[in-house]
Amino acid sequence: MSEMITSSSNSKIKLVRSLQVSSKNRKAESAFVAEGIRLVEEAISVNWPLQFLLYDESLSERGLALIKSLRRKHDADISEISPALMAEISDTETPQGILAVLKREAIPLPDSPSFVVIADQIRDPGNMGTLLRTTEAAGGDAVILTPGTVDAFSPKVVRSGMGAHFHLAIQHKDWDEIDSYLGSIPVFLAESEGGIPLWEADLAEGCALLIGGEAFGASPEGESRATQKITIPMRGRAESLNAAVAAAILIAEVLRQRYQK
Amino acid sequence: MSEMITSSSNSKIKLVRSLQVSSKNRKAESAFVAEGIRLVEEAISVNWPLQFLLYDESLSERGLALIKSLRRKHDADISEISPALMAEISDTETPQGILAVLKREAIPLPDSPSFVVIADQIRDPGNMGTLLRTTEAAGGDAVILTPGTVDAFSPKVVRSGMGAHFHLAIQHKDWDEIDSYLGSIPVFLAESEGGIPLWEADLAEGCALLIGGEAFGASPEGESRATQKITIPMRGRAESLNAAVAAAILIAEVLRQRYQK
Repeated sequence: MSEMITSSSNSKIKLVRSLQVSSKNRKAESAFVAEGIRLVEEAISVNWPLQFLLYDESLSERGLALIKSLRRKHDADISEISPALMAEISDTETPQGILAVLKREAIPLPDSPSFVVIADQIRDPGNMGTLLRTTEAAGGDAVILTPGTVDAFSPKVVRSGMGAHFHLAIQHKDWDEIDSYLGSIPVFLAESEGGIPLWEADLAEGCALLIGGEAFGASPEGESRATQKITIPMRGRAESLNAAVAAAILIAEVLRQRYQK
Repeated sequence: MSEMITSSSNSKIKLVRSLQVSSKNRKAESAFVAEGIRLVEEAISVNWPLQFLLYDESLSERGLALIKSLRRKHDADISEISPALMAEISDTETPQGILAVLKREAIPLPDSPSFVVIADQIRDPGNMGTLLRTTEAAGGDAVILTPGTVDAFSPKVVRSGMGAHFHLAIQHKDWDEIDSYLGSIPVFLAESEGGIPLWEADLAEGCALLIGGEAFGASPEGESRATQKITIPMRGRAESLNAAVAAAILIAEVLRQRYQK
């Protein structure tokens, strides 16, 4: 057993802190943080590369069992830390007493995709995480994040992604790479108004959905890639859907058309 | 001009605090709090009964213009408070410097509804607010909250409702009242698995969608009201949709069927 970490100048603690605060650090260190028992379990269940794991005495029975089995099966780097330190490095208001530093790596994009979501200028991490979660649930092939979009591995994106990160191809790409990946599949740009009703678009064949940002929609680069613009015809006040909700409605329409075909 | 409020024992400040913390207080005082410039503007635009309004020196030009026009047109009770007090009574991390105490009253339920959402055991205020926002956007007639469901007028529900409260009939009812309101319209219960695919349910005629809670689904009372159970057939991991997202997909399906009919 290693000694309990109690100093905030410990190198692991410093690393976690730096990974929590900026995407630059996450890229430089090629790592990210997953907090909470469900996320850590999910990462371990798919054998996601683990750099180290920290826990404190508040950890639940379920968490302790997980740590026990990790120690038994793998040569995992696991340390207990003081609850005060956990509170200091946690990004949540109510830490669950467990936190993993994972290697930042991307599940590869599948060849010949049939359903891709492109997140273009989404800035809110909660919306981004929910979009990842919904795409994964719908069996989408990949989510590609364009330049200017929030980092997919930020703490709040990971948290609201609810494990999607460990099952879905999620990659940051520039537009040239996106063009070459998509090839000739049509790109449907979600617009809050002015597009054809989503129910009249042909989403049954291979396609990409391009979801713009909450504030200003898609980038000019994104706009220029659109084969067709589609809109959810609402009846209430204009622009009144949450971005992640609007994206989910479009994703579900892809499912419906393929289901009914 | 009244004097600036700087004391936390001022009666308005005490009232706001009590309204922020519990639904019991909100019901006893028959009032609730709306924070931020957009929500306050929305309330004023529909002439929602205003008890009083508080602002601080950080308020934007847009906010100051709103206050000026309120002072001119109405005999509104408006006080400046110190930024320290605003930070103390605000429910948000970054207060926008404006906060209104509004009368807690409900827009009446319309007669012969054609589309009602029943929120049964939803506990997360963010999910509840998003559900209200989506229902309003979709032109739903009403959202009815069952016993055991989060208070529709809690600060976070109001905030994530994004103004839906001022446009949509939102009422807490017990099951007897719900039965008598719904009459013979069919009730479709959303289930994460085991129901018929939502696309095969007939949602084109008058109906109610019953949305259960995040953790344990609908209450036994809710279950017993279900005419039919419907499910969004997902392809990823089970139960992997956020509750507000799942509700939005069902609401959009109602829109689609009525649009295509």
